[in-house]
Amino acid sequence: MEHSLDNQELREWYKTRGFGGRVGFGQRPAIVAIDVARGWLDPDVDLGSAQSDVLDAIVEVLGAARETGTPIFFTTMGFSDPAEAGPVYARKLPLSATQTAGTPEMELHPAVQRRDDEPLIVKPRASGFFQTNLVTQLISRGIDTTVIVGLSTSGCIRATAESAFDYGFHAIVPQEAVGDRCPSAHAAALFDIDARLADVMPVADAIAELRRLAPVAVS
Amino acid sequence: MEHSLDNQELREWYKTRGFGGRVGFGQRPAIVAIDVARGWLDPDVDLGSAQSDVLDAIVEVLGAARETGTPIFFTTMGFSDPAEAGPVYARKLPLSATQTAGTPEMELHPAVQRRDDEPLIVKPRASGFFQTNLVTQLISRGIDTTVIVGLSTSGCIRATAESAFDYGFHAIVPQEAVGDRCPSAHAAALFDIDARLADVMPVADAIAELRRLAPVAVS
Amino acid sequence: MEHSLDNQELREWYKTRGFGGRVGFGQRPAIVAIDVARGWLDPDVDLGSAQSDVLDAIVEVLGAARETGTPIFFTTMGFSDPAEAGPVYARKLPLSATQTAGTPEMELHPAVQRRDDEPLIVKPRASGFFQTNLVTQLISRGIDTTVIVGLSTSGCIRATAESAFDYGFHAIVPQEAVGDRCPSAHAAALFDIDARLADVMPVADAIAELRRLAPVAVS
Amino acid sequence: MEHSLDNQELREWYKTRGFGGRVGFGQRPAIVAIDVARGWLDPDVDLGSAQSDVLDAIVEVLGAARETGTPIFFTTMGFSDPAEAGPVYARKLPLSATQTAGTPEMELHPAVQRRDDEPLIVKPRASGFFQTNLVTQLISRGIDTTVIVGLSTSGCIRATAESAFDYGFHAIVPQEAVGDRCPSAHAAALFDIDARLADVMPVADAIAELRRLAPVAVS
Repeated sequence: MEHSLDNQELREWYKTRGFGGRVGFGQRPAIVAIDVARGWLDPDVDLGSAQSDVLDAIVEVLGAARETGTPIFFTTMGFSDPAEAGPVYARKLPLSATQTAGTPEMELHPAVQRRDDEPLIVKPRASGFFQTNLVTQLISRGIDTTVIVGLSTSGCIRATAESAFDYGFHAIVPQEAVGDRCPSAHAAALFDIDARLADVMPVADAIAELRRLAPVAVS
Repeated sequence: MEHSLDNQELREWYKTRGFGGRVGFGQRPAIVAIDVARGWLDPDVDLGSAQSDVLDAIVEVLGAARETGTPIFFTTMGFSDPAEAGPVYARKLPLSATQTAGTPEMELHPAVQRRDDEPLIVKPRASGFFQTNLVTQLISRGIDTTVIVGLSTSGCIRATAESAFDYGFHAIVPQEAVGDRCPSAHAAALFDIDARLADVMPVADAIAELRRLAPVAVS
Repeated sequence: MEHSLDNQELREWYKTRGFGGRVGFGQRPAIVAIDVARGWLDPDVDLGSAQSDVLDAIVEVLGAARETGTPIFFTTMGFSDPAEAGPVYARKLPLSATQTAGTPEMELHPAVQRRDDEPLIVKPRASGFFQTNLVTQLISRGIDTTVIVGLSTSGCIRATAESAFDYGFHAIVPQEAVGDRCPSAHAAALFDIDARLADVMPVADAIAELRRLAPVAVS
Repeated sequence: MEHSLDNQELREWYKTRGFGGRVGFGQRPAIVAIDVARGWLDPDVDLGSAQSDVLDAIVEVLGAARETGTPIFFTTMGFSDPAEAGPVYARKLPLSATQTAGTPEMELHPAVQRRDDEPLIVKPRASGFFQTNLVTQLISRGIDTTVIVGLSTSGCIRATAESAFDYGFHAIVPQEAVGDRCPSAHAAALFDIDARLADVMPVADAIAELRRLAPVAVS
């Protein structure tokens, strides 16, 4: 049986078991843009795959955020030293050899055009929240809703959605703005995220909500 | 394409991309038994499903742990008040209405026969580590390896494996000793856990390792 | 030299070094009432000391909170089993033998008259935030300011103020509503809290701010 | 009454109340060297004060650690952008204006001669553990004991000792190897640390323990 959001029967069955309710937006959203860095977007790197449609959708969400005054937080990864990740990480994920701090692979993709007032957080694990100050930055700005975009759906996106949910934030995943090197992992993760952690919705719907909640009209 | 550990082609492809290495056991394992409570094992409860084979496998792992002097930590859930979980949790998971502290559904299943020196941790979210003192208890006992059993594979097992991995513990998931109400979610989660977080292995292999590492011969 | 808020010269010197700024209230305060339990208020218990003036001040703050619709969160402690605290805790603090879950010493003092919708959090360490779901509950309610009352100034109050500060919450300590078994510890802790973590202010000023920010007029 | 470790009467009284037990070393210590950076050691910087004796003692502990194969973890601070610290931090601590990432003030003091395999962690708050991956690095190396040196006693040293204690690590503070710009804050903090969190002991005693536990003879 296909484990995906296209499987309506499965969605209905989950609903009868008490999963998959709608959380919706709160009052003050922020964008959390996970690992929109060269390495994850370059098919010639272990980490990477061709994701130009996803990148376009991410750029569209970022544009709407800037237009509506919605704060944006970026993450990337990067260990100063292989030992920093620890032996468990290095053994499970040999790809960690390519996650070195300061390399071109760990730099944000130029298409996101990060501005100086949009924080860049270097995270040591999949979740944007784990052992970073993201939660403090969100609390400091009174954010109650995290709109999560980036890569990869079955790894860092799911983990970040779980942390956002765990901390009590509304979490939204605009469907076209997240991607994964593996289609079956992508589909299965989106299903589980929507059932347990966050509302998966079209980019257009998420942008409409950002506009509805825009804290200030920005010309 | 099937997203499961039976899909050898997919496993091979993940391996070429730098995922799915073997972590193995460290020196000092503990069992983390997640939500082996009546509610998750009773098909008449929203949360639950028929899992008698999984329960048998869990009991087998617990028996081997006691025989080898391996510490066991149990978790369950239970909110004192619906408001405690917060509105985001309540909306996404209407099943939360059945997760009330102290109800029979949240009690450990009698088959696990918890002993007084085996801690029971009441966790507020999927991961056994999130906002609980599990990490402190593991550090206090010098544990470096968590053997994770219980329910549900695509929810609390995956989340606990992710936290164990994030904190630097070796994580092992004995395959027959974890279960999920949904077969496709179970298969997809096991694949992702093995690729990214923990070694999925047969119960027999995990028990053999507990015996090899047994801190004390116990008659 | 006296290490206390009465030492104006010391306060001035700290100010010249870049400490002790005023944080003030944000928009949505909550009360965090730390360990207002029998054990800490009973001079016949190891933990305790005579604190009736402090208790009166706490009750006054709680009254103002209820009057203004300000949420209240209570904490206490209590280990199910001595091993749960871990050997380091037990050795450093032999008083832990009296911190058993469910004993009269760990019950809230009846004077606080906790209501059903005021959460009670059982914390395993000094800070009300460490390994508890307090931060999730605060985020869930959109709180940006924590008004910290209770016991003991040099232990759990300081630790809770530090966590609140670390997470980005405004933190306020109403001076007469915190107490400590040891006067010199109380004075030194209040100085350091005010210099580094939270605004220490008279109860009357804190209550005036609760009234100014009252989310709803409550008759 | 003087709040300091020299006040024997006060120590005795604390002991009768169940505080101030001895924790001792575990089996596998590491050094956690907090903020031994130019800014804290330069009296011409807001943060700083003259601490050459403290620096000598720190260097002595580091030397003994290297000689005995004891791992060393360094921290410093440094915000990429003032907004990163958040408004609460910036208001309470105007000194934060001098805590900019990558400035000479935030560089480790050259006397510590950090080696490539000694991690440097940039922390956003007083505790070396808060929102950093220090706990993961300690777990990854099987550490059970943290020997905490550096600056400042009443701020980052106390906070780090509290976190180490909270996580279940043995914590040791070698007395001459921690310093504070303010003598009364230093004395009061050492008293509270010893009563509640860590064993305060002479540098010579801590070094003797490192030698006793040396994992490998290193020529």
